[in-house]
Amino acid sequence: MALLLRAATWGLSSGRGYCSRGTQGSLREVFVAALRAVVGPPHVSTSIAVREQHGRDESMHRCQPPDVVVWPQNVDQVSRLTALCYSHGVPIIPFGTGTGLEGGVCAVQGGVCMNLTHMDRITALNLEDFSVVVEPGVTRKALNTHLRDSGLWFPVDPGSDASLCGMAATGASGTNAVRYGTMRDNILNLEVVLPSGQLLHTAGPGRHFRPGFWPSLPALYVLGSRKSAAGYNLTGLFVGSEGTLGLITAATLRLHPVPEATVAATCAFPSVQAAVDSTVHILQAAVPVARIEFLDDVMMDACNRHSQLNCVVAPTLFLEFHGSEQALVEQLQRAEEITQHNGGSHFSWAKEAEERSRLWAARHNAWYAALALRPGCKGYSTDVCVPISRLPEILVQTKEDLKASGLTGAIVGHVGDGNFHCILLVDPEDPEELHRVEAFAQQLGRRALALHGTCTGEHGIGLGKRQLLQEEVGAVGVETMRQLKATLDPRGLMNPGKVL
Amino acid sequence: MALLLRAATWGLSSGRGYCSRGTQGSLREVFVAALRAVVGPPHVSTSIAVREQHGRDESMHRCQPPDVVVWPQNVDQVSRLTALCYSHGVPIIPFGTGTGLEGGVCAVQGGVCMNLTHMDRITALNLEDFSVVVEPGVTRKALNTHLRDSGLWFPVDPGSDASLCGMAATGASGTNAVRYGTMRDNILNLEVVLPSGQLLHTAGPGRHFRPGFWPSLPALYVLGSRKSAAGYNLTGLFVGSEGTLGLITAATLRLHPVPEATVAATCAFPSVQAAVDSTVHILQAAVPVARIEFLDDVMMDACNRHSQLNCVVAPTLFLEFHGSEQALVEQLQRAEEITQHNGGSHFSWAKEAEERSRLWAARHNAWYAALALRPGCKGYSTDVCVPISRLPEILVQTKEDLKASGLTGAIVGHVGDGNFHCILLVDPEDPEELHRVEAFAQQLGRRALALHGTCTGEHGIGLGKRQLLQEEVGAVGVETMRQLKATLDPRGLMNPGKVL
Repeated sequence: MALLLRAATWGLSSGRGYCSRGTQGSLREVFVAALRAVVGPPHVSTSIAVREQHGRDESMHRCQPPDVVVWPQNVDQVSRLTALCYSHGVPIIPFGTGTGLEGGVCAVQGGVCMNLTHMDRITALNLEDFSVVVEPGVTRKALNTHLRDSGLWFPVDPGSDASLCGMAATGASGTNAVRYGTMRDNILNLEVVLPSGQLLHTAGPGRHFRPGFWPSLPALYVLGSRKSAAGYNLTGLFVGSEGTLGLITAATLRLHPVPEATVAATCAFPSVQAAVDSTVHILQAAVPVARIEFLDDVMMDACNRHSQLNCVVAPTLFLEFHGSEQALVEQLQRAEEITQHNGGSHFSWAKEAEERSRLWAARHNAWYAALALRPGCKGYSTDVCVPISRLPEILVQTKEDLKASGLTGAIVGHVGDGNFHCILLVDPEDPEELHRVEAFAQQLGRRALALHGTCTGEHGIGLGKRQLLQEEVGAVGVETMRQLKATLDPRGLMNPGKVL
Repeated sequence: MALLLRAATWGLSSGRGYCSRGTQGSLREVFVAALRAVVGPPHVSTSIAVREQHGRDESMHRCQPPDVVVWPQNVDQVSRLTALCYSHGVPIIPFGTGTGLEGGVCAVQGGVCMNLTHMDRITALNLEDFSVVVEPGVTRKALNTHLRDSGLWFPVDPGSDASLCGMAATGASGTNAVRYGTMRDNILNLEVVLPSGQLLHTAGPGRHFRPGFWPSLPALYVLGSRKSAAGYNLTGLFVGSEGTLGLITAATLRLHPVPEATVAATCAFPSVQAAVDSTVHILQAAVPVARIEFLDDVMMDACNRHSQLNCVVAPTLFLEFHGSEQALVEQLQRAEEITQHNGGSHFSWAKEAEERSRLWAARHNAWYAALALRPGCKGYSTDVCVPISRLPEILVQTKEDLKASGLTGAIVGHVGDGNFHCILLVDPEDPEELHRVEAFAQQLGRRALALHGTCTGEHGIGLGKRQLLQEEVGAVGVETMRQLKATLDPRGLMNPGKVL
């Protein structure tokens, strides 16, 4: 019966004609009524507008709406909804802030979108242990606002104000990773609802946890130790799994002390090579730089215009240093010496919060600055990452490819990690240009692989990079990933069509 | 035929009577001849002495020798040996330096021990990318000797001179983890021979890799980027899998710049609480301490005697700071202020390499110092890890348990991570004492779990902590791990009887 329902309801129709087709519609209505029984009627929507809001992220992947959107209020409901969907063969797509860049929320097979943002509690905070537990509705900025005056903060910063559990699901990183690591390095434990509805704590539930198939208590107190060698690293397996293995319903994050002082600096260079050499030398000198971002000449020009900066239009590094007042003086001095040695000029630093914010706001608004280069166009962001030594080569090649393809693109990157983005401007009404952009992105991905890099440093695979993933990890790698997926999600219903 | 051979050769006999029993012996001889054909006769041994050397590590787990020991010379041979064993249903146990502490190399079902130490090349080193590729025969000290004068080093330091691939397999850490992270944080890519003999590169093979079931070229040039969001984190899955999912035949490690200067310091405290409070305050003040080790009064007394130190017999912190000359002055000053504020006394620091080495040699010889407390006894090391805030509580409880149990034990710990070891002295001829030690260790593990900690911070599960693992990760956690094991090792031949 369940399988029959699946075939009739979800498997054989695209979901586009939801609630409008005779018998199928009735079966769906029964299913939707079951969803409503779990979360309450106000927390289920089948309206076209709501479904379309949930069928796309910030990327250019076309909108593919789910059949229904539900807002569970707690982990118990997530568990029951998941079991319900799974037993009926209905796809499940987790949804946080929708700020992804690889189409991770597109409902390619229709199904139920679980919007987890109503679960927005910070359920445990322990300052002595530098750890906090957040539900999926807690965003990066909301957490740091909550932590204000605590002396601690969560440094992983992908730019957008994403859900922290969503950042865990995509393996996000961003501008602070060179010093504080990525999401992979800053998660101590995850609460995951498995496809069956069962609750998994990847690093253990703690001893007070009340187990059971329908857990009646959320894991309010699960913290976790700073390290563990106990069994397989399940936390690591779910970080970056993009919702394809289970739903992350809470994350225990590692916090860091707020630096006593912060200084930002910018420096212009005669060439890409000089900027990258400076980066390598700064890292080799063990200067504990907190951010080191590269912007190419096109990007700098765009930022000057968009954010009213007055920087030289040249390959540029934006740097940030965290430490004691005394340590910062030394860090700045060393960084300036190194940049000068590499031909850098116009090394200028900003100690006051306001001036510093203006600089970093310009960096964080790089996306909008790039969009302003061709008003009316949409942006497409590539995301390759290579060993740092190969950065100059790939950046020079990329600029040549841009020229040859006739596309407009600006480059910005987390150069301390070897990760950079080319923000391409596309006229959405011009399919030929769209095709050129896609071809460019594929070529860039392959260039990164040829240089022992990866096709994605932080955005994930999603829909668009599945072929590149195969080329990256090879046949054995993909087969191993497929086996893991089939083991944990045997019916293939968790965010289907993504990653693999 | 293969299954018949398996039953006759390995499944039905313990392996203890190897090469001595009529038909079974002949079948085994055929199999051993096949192993010899792969690696050459000098690289296979069935001698009792050799097998016994390979049947135990540095723990108290009883020797369980494999049936045969082979020394593959390259990854191609590992692949062929593994496929041979797998097709014949013969267990495979990887062996590095044998310095494990949880019985990970015990051949509980007999089988083939693969001693990987002949594969001892450093196959790639890229200073600009801070990365190196090592084979399993390369130890921590050998790598750092090789890196001397390069300006880089590999900081993960579990004390013993273990194989780096072995450290990857157990998810090792040690004294530097508070600053540089554990093995989990410092591995960019692994080359793994899967049970079938297929070769997997967990973060991708790079583009020049020549694929194929019998790869004829080792992946000499595989480096890898500093971060990736490409698909499931296979690297993380194999780190800490203790040889139960595949054989690690190469690891790409992340290197760090050698600090410009190093200073060590010690400080005595009136109580455990005061020592731990100092640790938390030092971390909260963002003093980038490189090592922060706790030794209890018993341990200090033992170290004074064994290493001719003249320290106060009290709860003590050993600290080490890495940085520029100028930064160190400030770090030391802050640390001293914090320790004084918490009642610490006798803060003394050692800047000269010789004096520093003497201090840290004493710390690293803590194991032997503890053994000297009861000559003739063997040592047993526990390995729990808890959130730092729970450390005083568990340390005080542990000392009370020690007293109540009548056992001799000294405590030493990586207090910045919440990880500590109780080194218990046991008369190996006294089964009742051995039993008390085991009961004590189990109780300590459960205390850690009750405080949201883990039963192993760095030694792994091996043979002795399988029950504690179940309690730690719960039924769903264990079932998930079992599913992963069954997926990657469907015949259950990779280091059987360990972890799960």
